[in-house]
Amino acid sequence: MKNSTIKTATIVGAGLAGSLWAIYLAKAGYKVTIFERRTDIRKAEISAGKSINLALSTRGWTAMKEVGIERSIEPLAIPMTGRIMHPTDGELTYQPYGEEGQAIYSVSRGGINAKMMDLAEATGNATILYSHKCVDVEFETGTVTVVNSETNETLKHTADVVFACDGAYSAVRYSGFQKLDRFDFSQDYIDDGYREILLPANADGSYKIDKNALHIWPRGRFMLIALPNEDGSFTCTLFMPFENNEYSFDKLKTKNDVDNFFKNVFPDFYEMMPDIADQWEDHPLSSLAIMRCYPWTSGKVALMGDAAHATVPFYGQGMNGSLEDCYEMGRLMKKHNENWEAVFKEYQEVRKPNGDALQDLSVYNYKVMAEYVADPHFLLKKKFEHRIHDLYPNKYLSLYSMVSFSNIPYAEAHSKGKEQDTFIEGIMAEHDIESLMNSGDIDQLIHTVFKNK
Amino acid sequence: MKNSTIKTATIVGAGLAGSLWAIYLAKAGYKVTIFERRTDIRKAEISAGKSINLALSTRGWTAMKEVGIERSIEPLAIPMTGRIMHPTDGELTYQPYGEEGQAIYSVSRGGINAKMMDLAEATGNATILYSHKCVDVEFETGTVTVVNSETNETLKHTADVVFACDGAYSAVRYSGFQKLDRFDFSQDYIDDGYREILLPANADGSYKIDKNALHIWPRGRFMLIALPNEDGSFTCTLFMPFENNEYSFDKLKTKNDVDNFFKNVFPDFYEMMPDIADQWEDHPLSSLAIMRCYPWTSGKVALMGDAAHATVPFYGQGMNGSLEDCYEMGRLMKKHNENWEAVFKEYQEVRKPNGDALQDLSVYNYKVMAEYVADPHFLLKKKFEHRIHDLYPNKYLSLYSMVSFSNIPYAEAHSKGKEQDTFIEGIMAEHDIESLMNSGDIDQLIHTVFKNK
Repeated sequence: MKNSTIKTATIVGAGLAGSLWAIYLAKAGYKVTIFERRTDIRKAEISAGKSINLALSTRGWTAMKEVGIERSIEPLAIPMTGRIMHPTDGELTYQPYGEEGQAIYSVSRGGINAKMMDLAEATGNATILYSHKCVDVEFETGTVTVVNSETNETLKHTADVVFACDGAYSAVRYSGFQKLDRFDFSQDYIDDGYREILLPANADGSYKIDKNALHIWPRGRFMLIALPNEDGSFTCTLFMPFENNEYSFDKLKTKNDVDNFFKNVFPDFYEMMPDIADQWEDHPLSSLAIMRCYPWTSGKVALMGDAAHATVPFYGQGMNGSLEDCYEMGRLMKKHNENWEAVFKEYQEVRKPNGDALQDLSVYNYKVMAEYVADPHFLLKKKFEHRIHDLYPNKYLSLYSMVSFSNIPYAEAHSKGKEQDTFIEGIMAEHDIESLMNSGDIDQLIHTVFKNK
Repeated sequence: MKNSTIKTATIVGAGLAGSLWAIYLAKAGYKVTIFERRTDIRKAEISAGKSINLALSTRGWTAMKEVGIERSIEPLAIPMTGRIMHPTDGELTYQPYGEEGQAIYSVSRGGINAKMMDLAEATGNATILYSHKCVDVEFETGTVTVVNSETNETLKHTADVVFACDGAYSAVRYSGFQKLDRFDFSQDYIDDGYREILLPANADGSYKIDKNALHIWPRGRFMLIALPNEDGSFTCTLFMPFENNEYSFDKLKTKNDVDNFFKNVFPDFYEMMPDIADQWEDHPLSSLAIMRCYPWTSGKVALMGDAAHATVPFYGQGMNGSLEDCYEMGRLMKKHNENWEAVFKEYQEVRKPNGDALQDLSVYNYKVMAEYVADPHFLLKKKFEHRIHDLYPNKYLSLYSMVSFSNIPYAEAHSKGKEQDTFIEGIMAEHDIESLMNSGDIDQLIHTVFKNK
């Protein structure tokens, strides 16, 4: 280490990546100053059900375990062991996400964020300054300029190293990186927007639908999903094109439009929430974008999480990928003995392809959720894959499992997933898998194929 | 027209698009205020050869003719009727760009910009305010906020309609459009940079190489080009990867490196300019980017030229495309009787695909210039195409001619060009075109193919 005096770090943004990364740095002995644009979410009124929830999976847990905080988060997490599909007519169907005991976890964004802020402050090494908006950054000195939005005072703060964890609309990226020569950047909005809907608990506080599942109403080009909250409610999200589609947000102008839409398209949901039209405008219609950029580091400053690779939510990996950034940065901090120049160089080289793959996977999974999960061929393939994995757990892991239940780098999971898919589709083209599943002869085929693979 | 009082317009940026568009608006009776970030280029010292030159072609002339200014520009334009290729060893070769009498024109950017500023002011309806930097824009009111960099005063200026002609690094796009929800944007730097070199005139003021051509030293993955200036000099530009290549800018560190590089790679150029190593750092090493965005208009504000579709310079169409924006905006202004909402809607819908095609063509043409022009198959194809066009001028126009010598929309030229190329390659695969050209039997083949096409 160059510096024998106190080691300092600045983090811009006290969101999920920022507060977890503060714990990593604080535990490594850094004096950490976190500037957060908003007020303290712990002091604001947030009713549990109204905060957005997210799906926490293996990568997120791995990153939290590394600094020993997973036990503090577990009480806030509701396991979802599979998907329950709600067709327009007919029976619900269930697809387990993984093996017995595997699950992704519904968590409230605000809830786990507040907990991680507590844990960061509890280290004694991290200070969060709220209502401090970053307006400028100097790469070579590690200086950020922040404006206190309550007093309107401007402050310059210098540290050994600076981390921008300030989200998709990162001020550090916008006011700093984007002005660098040869900085590649793109923001691409998808054609779809989303609107959240709170499906309340029953009068007795119980859940209206199965608590331990992620519910999907797949409708081809659009979908409704629901994730459980701790209070018995579900946060539901309708993803749909803004315009130019048979069903699109621009066609839901009146309460009557909304009422008819739910009645016809999501009849079982409508039955549970016949006053949907009255709640329709409780949450805003929001847009969704993929943001890519490179480089991710310059001088003493690094982008992490959404600031580096904001994605669409369809694989439930945005948060997990951001927390994994912390794990990776932490690993490299140790590997290079806190030589930040070396850390940053390897961080961006290793992590960028994974950020890109995370984004590609996220876009792809919209199709899976909205369309494929209702497709008999896809469902059969899922069952076939599960059986292969049961018999050859070390030789076959589905793409979903690699992404959600492993720490295999996203880029590797993505390319291996494509390879496997070609392979499986080949077998399915040659054999009548459905009959073999029904007759029980499927294991023989699997053994033939995988025994010596 | 809604307004019976004075019609007003703001233009941000007094560059090529801004000053031409000011003439269009002034002639249509608008009181035009132009805010330009820089000082008046007409008062700054610019020696002719040191300004960048550009290739003016048909689209640019068309846009200038529409407002009757082409006669004022002609004296500043040097015709280049074709390309002269300089191989490492051996003879120079010549490829005409088009038919007898067709040419693209070398112009000094500063020179024609200054002239168009004069012409705009001469209308009596346009005022250019220099050292006024745009820092904000309000879309619904048509208000721009500018800072006078000499006095540091901030000014808000409102007009009926606002045009951002402020280039690749557009302040209006950056501080306005980029903050709009669902605004798609990307800046992609290519791997190559460029450095300009001034090849001086002979002692008697004469040109060292043919004046009426664009000179190219094609070297596969990189190239040197030269365009004539009025004073006998040439502005030469070396385009080359920044790094990671056998030949790249990062390898030219010392005077000795530069000297050896030119001696070995561009021997005939080196002979004309043996002191190249001393002039090497007269001009900076610069980067090149493609910038795409959408929408191009919002409320009362529209992006034009590089602000909407900045491109790399390899097709010589950046300026021409920007001037064509003026032509198109002018056409729509008339068509919709100055109903700007309607004008802007059609402008962006019609023009965006052409901006994209311009950019795709620009990237593609780097390959043409650096690699294909030295490829015998490409040269034979060019000759074959010229002969087809000679015999069937209404049935065959090469891609280059569609782009440079016609006003066919870029997107149409691009797709037609791809179609034609497949077709021509098909004929070339079936017939020995070289022998037929030599024997004179080529016309018979062309007649067979094109007579009834």
